[in-house]
Amino acid sequence: MPNAARWAATLTLTATAVCGPLTGSALAAPHTAASGLYAPSAFVMTVGHGEYAALATPERAVTLNCAPTASGTHPDPVGACAELKGAGGDLDALPVRIGALCTKQYAPVVVTVDGVWQGQRVSYERTFANECVKNSYGSAVLTF
Amino acid sequence: MPNAARWAATLTLTATAVCGPLTGSALAAPHTAASGLYAPSAFVMTVGHGEYAALATPERAVTLNCAPTASGTHPDPVGACAELKGAGGDLDALPVRIGALCTKQYAPVVVTVDGVWQGQRVSYERTFANECVKNSYGSAVLTF
Repeated sequence: MPNAARWAATLTLTATAVCGPLTGSALAAPHTAASGLYAPSAFVMTVGHGEYAALATPERAVTLNCAPTASGTHPDPVGACAELKGAGGDLDALPVRIGALCTKQYAPVVVTVDGVWQGQRVSYERTFANECVKNSYGSAVLTF
Repeated sequence: MPNAARWAATLTLTATAVCGPLTGSALAAPHTAASGLYAPSAFVMTVGHGEYAALATPERAVTLNCAPTASGTHPDPVGACAELKGAGGDLDALPVRIGALCTKQYAPVVVTVDGVWQGQRVSYERTFANECVKNSYGSAVLTF
């Protein structure tokens, strides 16, 4: 019986893994933290001119998915997901790129990143002195 | 001169519209509210078991883009965007589907929708008595 139970569990998992993607439905696809197959990682990111997101009209908004594969309207989903993974999901840990040259002009842009990183909620807001400075942090995540 | 100026503006817009998408970059693509071509509409949606998002682990997270075209890991981006448009972006305006039958079992699920609808920020959270009840609202947006 333990063997039979193990087989049944294996077959169920296999069937779910094989059939899930074929349905084309997130309802059927077992990408849940609870299922243990993988934790969701998905974001919406915005950028607007201003100091605070609450007061800044979002001029661009892109999406980014990192699980199970990198996708989204972000211009570089693969690079952005790799960078996030390297930073352990900590957007404050993105280093300034060596060689990045920006003026000191103060034309603040505010970035928001909301969503989920490896099953944990993320709600992030950060203001940069200007767009060039924004793009000088890291190499992909904030370059949208 | 006014004519020349008008032509210049037209040519610039045309060049931006034609060349923007070819770069494959959101930086170049003029999908900004400021440009007036279209306002961004992009979301990240989560669902988890519990009454409050702050206390519920997100078990699924999907993305949805509605501008310029419908895309994302949402199982039905086209349907979801059409439904959002019909509701004027008001998630509370989604009607209960006629004929939807759900038990009264209390196993609350909490949905979050964050992002931008036609250039306006959206931050939405709603709790349903169970998953069936969640899916009974509207026909696509919340069915993920």
